[in-house]
Amino acid sequence: MRITHMKIFPKMKVSDLINEMGKSRVLGAGKVYKAAKILRKMFNDKDMNVFLSLAGPLVPGGMRQIIADLVKQGKIDVIISSGANLTHDLLEAFGGAHYRGKGFDDKKLRKKSIGRIGDIYTKSDDFEIFEEKINIIFKKIAKKKKIISIRELLYEIGKYLDDKNSIIKNATEKNVPIYSPGIIDSMIGLQLWMFTQENELHLDAVADMHHLSDVVFSSKKIGAIILGGGLPKHYTIASTILRGGIDAGIQITTDRGEGGSLSGAPLEEAISWGKARANADLVTVVGDVTIIFPLLVAAAIDEG
Amino acid sequence: MRITHMKIFPKMKVSDLINEMGKSRVLGAGKVYKAAKILRKMFNDKDMNVFLSLAGPLVPGGMRQIIADLVKQGKIDVIISSGANLTHDLLEAFGGAHYRGKGFDDKKLRKKSIGRIGDIYTKSDDFEIFEEKINIIFKKIAKKKKIISIRELLYEIGKYLDDKNSIIKNATEKNVPIYSPGIIDSMIGLQLWMFTQENELHLDAVADMHHLSDVVFSSKKIGAIILGGGLPKHYTIASTILRGGIDAGIQITTDRGEGGSLSGAPLEEAISWGKARANADLVTVVGDVTIIFPLLVAAAIDEG
Amino acid sequence: MRITHMKIFPKMKVSDLINEMGKSRVLGAGKVYKAAKILRKMFNDKDMNVFLSLAGPLVPGGMRQIIADLVKQGKIDVIISSGANLTHDLLEAFGGAHYRGKGFDDKKLRKKSIGRIGDIYTKSDDFEIFEEKINIIFKKIAKKKKIISIRELLYEIGKYLDDKNSIIKNATEKNVPIYSPGIIDSMIGLQLWMFTQENELHLDAVADMHHLSDVVFSSKKIGAIILGGGLPKHYTIASTILRGGIDAGIQITTDRGEGGSLSGAPLEEAISWGKARANADLVTVVGDVTIIFPLLVAAAIDEG
Amino acid sequence: MRITHMKIFPKMKVSDLINEMGKSRVLGAGKVYKAAKILRKMFNDKDMNVFLSLAGPLVPGGMRQIIADLVKQGKIDVIISSGANLTHDLLEAFGGAHYRGKGFDDKKLRKKSIGRIGDIYTKSDDFEIFEEKINIIFKKIAKKKKIISIRELLYEIGKYLDDKNSIIKNATEKNVPIYSPGIIDSMIGLQLWMFTQENELHLDAVADMHHLSDVVFSSKKIGAIILGGGLPKHYTIASTILRGGIDAGIQITTDRGEGGSLSGAPLEEAISWGKARANADLVTVVGDVTIIFPLLVAAAIDEG
Repeated sequence: MRITHMKIFPKMKVSDLINEMGKSRVLGAGKVYKAAKILRKMFNDKDMNVFLSLAGPLVPGGMRQIIADLVKQGKIDVIISSGANLTHDLLEAFGGAHYRGKGFDDKKLRKKSIGRIGDIYTKSDDFEIFEEKINIIFKKIAKKKKIISIRELLYEIGKYLDDKNSIIKNATEKNVPIYSPGIIDSMIGLQLWMFTQENELHLDAVADMHHLSDVVFSSKKIGAIILGGGLPKHYTIASTILRGGIDAGIQITTDRGEGGSLSGAPLEEAISWGKARANADLVTVVGDVTIIFPLLVAAAIDEG
Repeated sequence: MRITHMKIFPKMKVSDLINEMGKSRVLGAGKVYKAAKILRKMFNDKDMNVFLSLAGPLVPGGMRQIIADLVKQGKIDVIISSGANLTHDLLEAFGGAHYRGKGFDDKKLRKKSIGRIGDIYTKSDDFEIFEEKINIIFKKIAKKKKIISIRELLYEIGKYLDDKNSIIKNATEKNVPIYSPGIIDSMIGLQLWMFTQENELHLDAVADMHHLSDVVFSSKKIGAIILGGGLPKHYTIASTILRGGIDAGIQITTDRGEGGSLSGAPLEEAISWGKARANADLVTVVGDVTIIFPLLVAAAIDEG
Repeated sequence: MRITHMKIFPKMKVSDLINEMGKSRVLGAGKVYKAAKILRKMFNDKDMNVFLSLAGPLVPGGMRQIIADLVKQGKIDVIISSGANLTHDLLEAFGGAHYRGKGFDDKKLRKKSIGRIGDIYTKSDDFEIFEEKINIIFKKIAKKKKIISIRELLYEIGKYLDDKNSIIKNATEKNVPIYSPGIIDSMIGLQLWMFTQENELHLDAVADMHHLSDVVFSSKKIGAIILGGGLPKHYTIASTILRGGIDAGIQITTDRGEGGSLSGAPLEEAISWGKARANADLVTVVGDVTIIFPLLVAAAIDEG
Repeated sequence: MRITHMKIFPKMKVSDLINEMGKSRVLGAGKVYKAAKILRKMFNDKDMNVFLSLAGPLVPGGMRQIIADLVKQGKIDVIISSGANLTHDLLEAFGGAHYRGKGFDDKKLRKKSIGRIGDIYTKSDDFEIFEEKINIIFKKIAKKKKIISIRELLYEIGKYLDDKNSIIKNATEKNVPIYSPGIIDSMIGLQLWMFTQENELHLDAVADMHHLSDVVFSSKKIGAIILGGGLPKHYTIASTILRGGIDAGIQITTDRGEGGSLSGAPLEEAISWGKARANADLVTVVGDVTIIFPLLVAAAIDEG
C-alpha cells in the first residue's frame, strides 16, 4: 500500500495531526496512530475494562491531572501503580509540589535538601508535611482496621484527601481499585513500616490477589494502558493470564527489547506467555511518556 | 518554580497541547515545548536564515510534504540533505512511491525486489523508472554544463521536475540551495557516476563550500533545524564555525550522547567547537522524528 | 591528560583488556575501566558490605552461575532481587531449564506453551514441575511457621534445594539475606497466594524492613552492584538513606536518563536524595548486562 | 536447546570469556559470541576481503592503535571512513593528541579553545599544527598531480607521515585503499578547499567509485566490519550491491532500528536491498564500540 505524506495546516487539532499520521502510517508516527485508535476503542467499548499501569515519574512529570481526569470521567477501571507515583500524588494532595529549574549539581542539591528526578525537583519540607499528614491518616485507619490490604489502604487514604486533582482521591470516589504490589518500596511504605512499629496495623500483601482475580474474571474484555514498564507492567498483564491475557494494549516506553527486560519487551512477547490474547490489538510506542501519552489522550477523547 | 500539571480537553489544538507542555516544562514534554518556541522564533524572525538538515528516512517516512510546504512558504533558507532523501524525493517525483505492510522477512522481500527501511518498503520497478528519468535529466544538464557543483546539479534537476510536492522542485523555485556533500553515496550519485562513464559531466565536490560560506557570512542570524544526525548535521553546524556558530538550533534524534557520536551529541556540545554561539537557543529532543517534527511544525505555524 | 590508545595482543587476559581500557579511559571503555576498579575495591574491602541488586532476565540470560559463585566466595553480603529472578532460579533448581533457538513467532510459541524473554525461552512443563515442588516446600515451611517475612521464606526455601548452583541455596548456606519486596508479582508469589487459600501461612511484607535496616546500620561501608533498574534498584539505594547513602556503586543498564525513570537515572542522581554519599565512588555503564557484568567480574577477581 | 550458564574464573583470557558467552548464547552475550566467531572467520579466510567501516569517535576514543595494528597485520583489505576519523588520525600523526578530564561546561571549554566529543577533548593548538602540516603535504601532492581522487589523496598523504601508529600511514604502506566519500565535510576537506583557492588541485569525488567497483568485483568473498553507522556504513554495503551483497558482516552500534535510520538498522535489512547475501553471516551488537570492538578483536585473534 502506498504511503501518503502527512500535511500540516493552521489551527490543526491534535486529532487532525493523528489522522495525518494515519496517512503515512509508518515508523513512530504509524505506531502513535495505531495507539490512538486502540485507546479510543478502549475508552468507547462499554465491555472493556481499562487497566492503567503507572511506572516512572508520571506524577512528578506533569501527568497527574490527566490521569485524575481520566478516572473522574470513568475511563479507567483499574490502576496498578508504583509506590512512588502514589507517594508523589499524596505529596501534592498535602500541599507540596514538584519544581523545575534547580540545576544538575547533585552535591549542591543534597545540601539544600532537594531531591532530583531528571530535571524535576522535590523539597524535603514537602516530604516532612507528607510524613506528618500520612501518619494522621494511618492513625484514623488503624482505628477502623487492624489487617488491611494495599488496595484497601489506598482506598481508605483517598477518603481523607481534600484535593480534587488527586489520583487516589478520585479513585476512591469512583471506586476504581488501586493495586500497588511494590508499595513497601516507597515513602508510603517506609512511613507505614515506622507507624506499625508503635501501632497495630498489618499490611496483608497477598490479599489483593483475590480481589484482582475477581475483577479480571468479571471483565468481558480487558484493555491495558501501560505507561513505563517495571513491576506495574508485569502485574497488569500477568493478572490476566488465567483468562488468556489482555484483549488490547498500548505501551509507551523508552526501554528497548534487545536486553530481554520486561520493561523493554514489545507487547507481542506477552502473547507467548498467555498474558495477551493471540488476536489482541497491541502496540508499543518507543518514546517519552510525557510527550506521547497526552498526545494519545487528546486524540482519543476527541473522536469519542 | 512549581510544576503545573498538563490538562487535556476536547477539540484541543496542537498549539494548545504544546502550551500545556509548557506548564509542566519538564522531561520530554519540556523539551518539546522549548523546541516549538524556538522553531516559532526561527520562522518569524526576518533576520534569521533557517538551515534544515535532513538525515534518516524522512521522505520515505512521510515527511516529504511537510518539508516541501515549508520551502514553499518561504520558511526554509538552506537545505543540507543526505543523498538518500533527495533520491527518494526524485523517486516520488518520477511517479514511484513508498509502501507499507510488506512484512519483515528480508529474504522474501529480496526475492520480490522489495527494499526495506524499517517498516517502509520500496519497489525496484520504481527505481528502474528513476534511473531512466534521472538519466534523461543528466543528459539535458550535460548539454549546458560540463563542470557542476552538487548544489547546481540539484538546482538544475529541480527545473525538470513536474511534481509540485517535490522538495527539490520547490527548492529550485524558491531558490533555496540544497547542499548534499555525501550525495555520491546514493542512487543519484551512482547513476551520475555511470552517466559520466560515457558522458562528459564533472561533479565538483568542493565548489559548494564557497557558495555556502557566502550564505553563512551574509546571514544576520542562523537557525538550524536538525532532523537526524550524520553528515548533514555536521556540515550544517560546521559551516557556521567561522562566524561563531548558529544562533538557534533544534535537533530531533533517537541517538544518545554517551557514545560520543555527533549524531547523538546534545547541541550544547557544539558550543565548545564554536559551531553554536555561547548564548544560542538550543534544544535536543530525543524521539522519533516522524512524531516530533510534525508536532513542532503544527505548533510553530499556529502562533505565527 | 593525553589519551593513550588501547592495544590488543594474543592470549590477552580479561584484566589486560580492562587495563588497556584504563589507558584511553573515555567513552564506554572508560566507564568499564572505572567500574572494574570499583568492583575490585568492593570485593577486597573487608569493611564494605556488598549489596547486589538483580532486575531483568539475569538467571534466564545465563548469569546464574556467576551470581551463585560470588555468593559462594563470600563476595556478596546482601541480595535484593526481583521475584522473577528467584522464580527462574528455582525453575532450574527443580530440574527445569531455559532454552534458545525457538524463534520469534509469539502466536506459535503460545500454542507450544513456550514463553519468550527476548531470545530466551521457557517451557510450561518446567513450570508445572516448579509448581509441584514449590508447594511441597511451602507445606514443609508452613508446618514450622505461620507468619513469615519474604527474606525468611527465601531462606527456608534454600534449605530444601538440592542444586549447588542455585543462588537461593547458596544464599541460605552463606547466610546472605535475600530481600524481594515485589515477590508477590512473580510465580513464587502466585503459588504462595494459591497455597494460602487452603493453608495457613502469612507473608509479612513489612517485616524485612526492620531486618534490612539493622544490616544497613551495622555496615561500616556499603557498596552496591546494580544490575538493571526497577524496584530492586530503588529498594537497594533507598534502604541506605538513613545512613547517608551508599559509599560505592556500579550500575549496568540499557535505560537512559532523559525520561526521568529511576531505572535510567545515573547513580549520581542518588546523591541528591541522600541515597549515595556525596563523595561516593559511582559509575553507570550503559550496556547489556550479559556482556558487561561477566567482563567486570572477570577483571575484578583477577587483581584481587 | 538448553542454556548453559557462564562461569568466571581467575586469569581468564578474553577468548575464554567469549567461549563462556557461547555457552549461554542469548541476549547481548550471544550476539558478542556470534560476532567474535564471524570476525575470526573473516580474519582467517584467505578468500575473504575485509572492509572496515569507520564512523563515530573511533580515533578520539582510543581505537587508533587497534585499527592501525589490524592494517599492519594484513587483516583489513579496504577502509571506508568518515572524514573526522582521518582528520583525528592526522592530528595525532602531526604530534597532537586527544585529552580527558576537562569537564562538561561547553561555554568554558569554548573560551579555552577546547573542543568536546563526549568526554574526549581536543585543543585548538593541535589543530593549528594540523593545518600547517597538512598544507605542506597538499603542496607536495599538488606538485605531482592536478586532479586526484579522495583515495589517491589519502594514499599520498600516507607517504609523508612519520608516525608508525597512523592508520593512514599503515594503509599506504600496506596498499589498503581508504575511501572517504564525505571527506569534504571534515577539517581535511575544509583545509583542502582553502588550499584550492590559491593552488591548483582538483578533488575528483566520483573517481573512486570505479576503483572500488573493481575491488568489489575482484573479491571472492566480502566481509564487513561496521563500526558505527552513517555514510561509511551505507557506502560499504551499497558498494557490494552489484555482486549481491556482503557474505559476512558484523555491526556495532548504539542506534536502534525503530526509527528506520540506516545507522540503527539491523544488518538483516541489507538482505532485502541486495547489500547482503541472503545466506550471509550477519550480526548486529547493540553497544559501545569502545567496549565491544576491542573485546571482539582480542577474542578473534586468539583462536586464529
